[in-house]
Amino acid sequence: MVIVMSAAAAGSDVGTAVALIEKAGGQAFVSRGAGRTLVCVVGDPDGFSALNLSALPGVDTVIRTSAAYKLVSRENCLARSTVQVAGASIGPGHVTLVAGPCAVESYDQTLRAAEMAAVAGATMLRGGAYKPRTSPYAFQGLGEAGLRILADVREATGLPIVTEVVDAADVGLVSSYADMLQVGTRNAQNFALLRAVGEAGTPVMLKRGMSATIDEWLMAAEYIAQHGNLDIVLCERGIRTFETATRNTLDISAVTIVQQLSHLPVIVDPSHSGGRRDLVLPLTRAAVAIGADGVIIDVHPDPATALCDGPQALIEGDLLELADILTRWGRITARHADYAGASAY
Amino acid sequence: MVIVMSAAAAGSDVGTAVALIEKAGGQAFVSRGAGRTLVCVVGDPDGFSALNLSALPGVDTVIRTSAAYKLVSRENCLARSTVQVAGASIGPGHVTLVAGPCAVESYDQTLRAAEMAAVAGATMLRGGAYKPRTSPYAFQGLGEAGLRILADVREATGLPIVTEVVDAADVGLVSSYADMLQVGTRNAQNFALLRAVGEAGTPVMLKRGMSATIDEWLMAAEYIAQHGNLDIVLCERGIRTFETATRNTLDISAVTIVQQLSHLPVIVDPSHSGGRRDLVLPLTRAAVAIGADGVIIDVHPDPATALCDGPQALIEGDLLELADILTRWGRITARHADYAGASAY
Amino acid sequence: MVIVMSAAAAGSDVGTAVALIEKAGGQAFVSRGAGRTLVCVVGDPDGFSALNLSALPGVDTVIRTSAAYKLVSRENCLARSTVQVAGASIGPGHVTLVAGPCAVESYDQTLRAAEMAAVAGATMLRGGAYKPRTSPYAFQGLGEAGLRILADVREATGLPIVTEVVDAADVGLVSSYADMLQVGTRNAQNFALLRAVGEAGTPVMLKRGMSATIDEWLMAAEYIAQHGNLDIVLCERGIRTFETATRNTLDISAVTIVQQLSHLPVIVDPSHSGGRRDLVLPLTRAAVAIGADGVIIDVHPDPATALCDGPQALIEGDLLELADILTRWGRITARHADYAGASAY
Amino acid sequence: MVIVMSAAAAGSDVGTAVALIEKAGGQAFVSRGAGRTLVCVVGDPDGFSALNLSALPGVDTVIRTSAAYKLVSRENCLARSTVQVAGASIGPGHVTLVAGPCAVESYDQTLRAAEMAAVAGATMLRGGAYKPRTSPYAFQGLGEAGLRILADVREATGLPIVTEVVDAADVGLVSSYADMLQVGTRNAQNFALLRAVGEAGTPVMLKRGMSATIDEWLMAAEYIAQHGNLDIVLCERGIRTFETATRNTLDISAVTIVQQLSHLPVIVDPSHSGGRRDLVLPLTRAAVAIGADGVIIDVHPDPATALCDGPQALIEGDLLELADILTRWGRITARHADYAGASAY
Repeated sequence: MVIVMSAAAAGSDVGTAVALIEKAGGQAFVSRGAGRTLVCVVGDPDGFSALNLSALPGVDTVIRTSAAYKLVSRENCLARSTVQVAGASIGPGHVTLVAGPCAVESYDQTLRAAEMAAVAGATMLRGGAYKPRTSPYAFQGLGEAGLRILADVREATGLPIVTEVVDAADVGLVSSYADMLQVGTRNAQNFALLRAVGEAGTPVMLKRGMSATIDEWLMAAEYIAQHGNLDIVLCERGIRTFETATRNTLDISAVTIVQQLSHLPVIVDPSHSGGRRDLVLPLTRAAVAIGADGVIIDVHPDPATALCDGPQALIEGDLLELADILTRWGRITARHADYAGASAY
Repeated sequence: MVIVMSAAAAGSDVGTAVALIEKAGGQAFVSRGAGRTLVCVVGDPDGFSALNLSALPGVDTVIRTSAAYKLVSRENCLARSTVQVAGASIGPGHVTLVAGPCAVESYDQTLRAAEMAAVAGATMLRGGAYKPRTSPYAFQGLGEAGLRILADVREATGLPIVTEVVDAADVGLVSSYADMLQVGTRNAQNFALLRAVGEAGTPVMLKRGMSATIDEWLMAAEYIAQHGNLDIVLCERGIRTFETATRNTLDISAVTIVQQLSHLPVIVDPSHSGGRRDLVLPLTRAAVAIGADGVIIDVHPDPATALCDGPQALIEGDLLELADILTRWGRITARHADYAGASAY
Repeated sequence: MVIVMSAAAAGSDVGTAVALIEKAGGQAFVSRGAGRTLVCVVGDPDGFSALNLSALPGVDTVIRTSAAYKLVSRENCLARSTVQVAGASIGPGHVTLVAGPCAVESYDQTLRAAEMAAVAGATMLRGGAYKPRTSPYAFQGLGEAGLRILADVREATGLPIVTEVVDAADVGLVSSYADMLQVGTRNAQNFALLRAVGEAGTPVMLKRGMSATIDEWLMAAEYIAQHGNLDIVLCERGIRTFETATRNTLDISAVTIVQQLSHLPVIVDPSHSGGRRDLVLPLTRAAVAIGADGVIIDVHPDPATALCDGPQALIEGDLLELADILTRWGRITARHADYAGASAY
Repeated sequence: MVIVMSAAAAGSDVGTAVALIEKAGGQAFVSRGAGRTLVCVVGDPDGFSALNLSALPGVDTVIRTSAAYKLVSRENCLARSTVQVAGASIGPGHVTLVAGPCAVESYDQTLRAAEMAAVAGATMLRGGAYKPRTSPYAFQGLGEAGLRILADVREATGLPIVTEVVDAADVGLVSSYADMLQVGTRNAQNFALLRAVGEAGTPVMLKRGMSATIDEWLMAAEYIAQHGNLDIVLCERGIRTFETATRNTLDISAVTIVQQLSHLPVIVDPSHSGGRRDLVLPLTRAAVAIGADGVIIDVHPDPATALCDGPQALIEGDLLELADILTRWGRITARHADYAGASAY
């Protein structure tokens, strides 16, 4: 059972509901997002009927749900969510561009990449300070020094930052610099980390595990939501298949399916899914056309010297076409996206 | 080594080249498509240098290729091909819609589906008379009676027909009715069938095997080309992965990669890849946006009674949106598609 | 519904049952194997109750089955089948070794490989005359000349032959030479071919499709059985996964699962699953230990010059260890295999 | 470059080598296991030639390696390792049984499961106190209370404990109870956790990621080794494929391949790979036969009431057959395993 609190609900209204539920022997998980508070109630739903929860102050509706994921489910026509990130927003009705270097290498490199991102229309900057690398001998990221660079570049460009956190113990530190936390594909079922970013309250971008089913991906989001944080953006970044022509296989269908199953925004990472620069713009066109709420793209001022994933970074010469796709295509997609939303329910 | 014959080359020019090559101990495979004739030369390339092949009458250029697939490769900037199918065409610069019922069930059902296809802007009719079904107890198609129905509906609507052939022995019969032969995903490495459709000369739509790499898919096309037929359209229809939310996982990246590797047109089957009606229009948007040369879509006047794959068929109410996607999106994609082609080489 | 005929049933008994069923509006598919005849009845089971089929002459039992595959299902405790191949047998209680060259290249090469096979304890000879190859430019097999070589080597060694058939049109020709027909992984859903080998009556080895689920594999076997032939041996040969260290991933669990679901014998191909000589003996140990009814193994007198799949062929020096595995391990496995069979039902 | 220290080397010998390397501008990673100390040297190998490292006191040999994983590689014929776990050992020459409940639920349940394990011949007890579960609403384990139960059961039975740790922050706590730490499939690329268990020094069982290639799996082990800990046991537990008949597909070939590539012991988890009780004993037979150094198996006194993975737990009645497999089969495998080791190099 999920209680949808009204926009005008006071904190005390939530407290009242929670207290009643716990008194009746249930468990209540409060999850807060931009302009939306949900309470997930665990226990026998029949046991709560006497509570008449829908009549409580501040309660909008009460949804009986059979979805395995409750707080992130779209069941019962819940409107799709918009996540706010320090002035930028990701949600239905427009296409958000998040761009930047795969890894933060230096202030100059990051600044130049951020300027490239801005030229293409980005409203958020991506960049990794903690890099999960297959080999322990590969560049592991600059750590906190990288976070400071990101903060300085934000200062210079005004772009809010999304950056990856790879350990629950680092969530506090990374949150103190970042506007949005990224949970990467290798940590998609690192439940300790999911709980920690849930408790942190900072908006989260949750990448799909490279072998996660859509169900498992939404369950991972549910961990974050259950621990208090409903400001979650899902990111499709390709799955592992037998095909070796691409680093991963972009599962473009997942965008539509997840938008039907969940109210959370969904963006696409055309850089990491293909792993090839020549696929980034075509996959961006596909992502925008199918109705993704945004794209996250690697750009680098000099990919040949990049310390991580150079071959997939866009360069200067690609930016105008990227901008063109996002404006021209975004416009006609918005209409489709709304229709899709409407027709699905 | 591949000899590109000029558009004006006479049949005797081809014969002269072949005779020279064979005399020099090589093998020559002549492959003919709409407005394009290629000759694949197998043997030691150095052994043919004295022949001065590029100076022969009717020879445009001679390409030394290292691609494993030679006749279907795009190496050395070969312009992308257009395949002509009885008045319809599939190739760069526009988006072709092929639509119709998954299986031919009756004249009425097929006619009504064809009329639906036409409303959406289809220039070709699809429909299966021979159905490869997982179970021997499932409906196996009407066979030749189905082919006759297709021919009658072509008569009534003017739409050329593409229909599947599942056995080398049937190629002659199916060719006598169909304008284009379809080789299905389960026969993607049925080499006897590939050879037979190569020899038949009728245009071919070659679906990707559900577990075929892009390389294997192009190699399957090479079998057809090597046996004389260059009028091949490749069709991405989803690959088999661990994800069970969709029947297959549409590998949208494959469209761009194949257009780079091969001169052959590439279309997408959004119906069979997702296996769900609610994904057909979104996936069509993605396919058009990435630059597919067409889409092939199941439509059915009454999906609830369909003998095969009803759940994925579009209905009456979907047709206008489908038409809108193809016109509105097709227009702006054409420009991108040309750019992509240009930039790739 | 499946009618199990008694061992003593006359041909006329089968005819009587079929006639009754058809008169009652049902369809009857008669399937014959070594010492076992089954009749699959399609139609409303309640409609046949008045026929009292189990009282008919020659009828042993009547099984109501809900399995999608009926003739090859093991439902209702059907004892596991043994398939007889010209004196050799494959079935429960012992481990059959089928060995020989991947491709027949010459009489000498085939004879030497057959002698190697015999040294290792093989009771059947494998060897391909028709080779399905990814590239049309690769060696495609010797065709009928290869079949003649196989027949000559059988003459010289006494080993019955299993060889692949790749086209329905060739089934008659190949059957005229071979003791057992092999349907390869690429033709695992070539239904025209499955029907043809079903009608031919020659024993069949059906390889699993490289992306076939166990259900699809059994359904493919059902096609053969439905067309009259119950002498089918299933062969697990690895499936396609993301792992690239091996050519395919041997699905060793499939052996046990298929033996539970079907009465047909199951063998393992450790050569093609791994694609590496150094895995053949270890995978053979695993196959024998889990209870496979046999193994099919590539041997070659001189792998370095092999025209097909040399890197996976065993050489002279491996034969004694192979023989040792099959005898020593086979002995203790036989007991387990029987137990497994008993405990599973 | 890897320095193999001799068994008699003093701690000061290692210190001397490290100091020299660092003085020459290199990095040295010291990794210690039972009876084996390795030093991985990163930097230009030619730059270290003047150091004459092989002549240093306590140095056995110096290996120039091109393997991406250096400390865990078997390059240059390194003998296979044995890992010691509080009296139990895992390594070549015998088959170790680790058994116990999937999750620790209570003292009684754990004690009874441990007694079952002992009956089957287990020398180590498994049991989860921290359970990584797909759903946040599923039983998440008893946490430290579970660790205390495990310690009490160890006291009662004498069996050393392996238990999972899911967060780097918990490594100290879990190490204070456990004899061996388990890193689960979902954390196979949780590099923060891998580093932490590397530093802890407690022996580690590293499960293969469900979509990890063999290379990625060995790289994960290298993280642990690089951080000081060479007492690592690798555990194959099935990979994710398209097949749905089993929870995962056991990649039995991986056992042999990993034993060739790495000196670390490799065990198999037949319970989690199949996810079905009826597959556990057959897969155990296959694992022992191919030469796995051990198996880890779920047992439960009452699977029907299990809070986690009941359907795959062995019961009382299976134990004697399990014991029989391990003794009877283990004996004849030992010989093969040694041979395999010998022949591979």
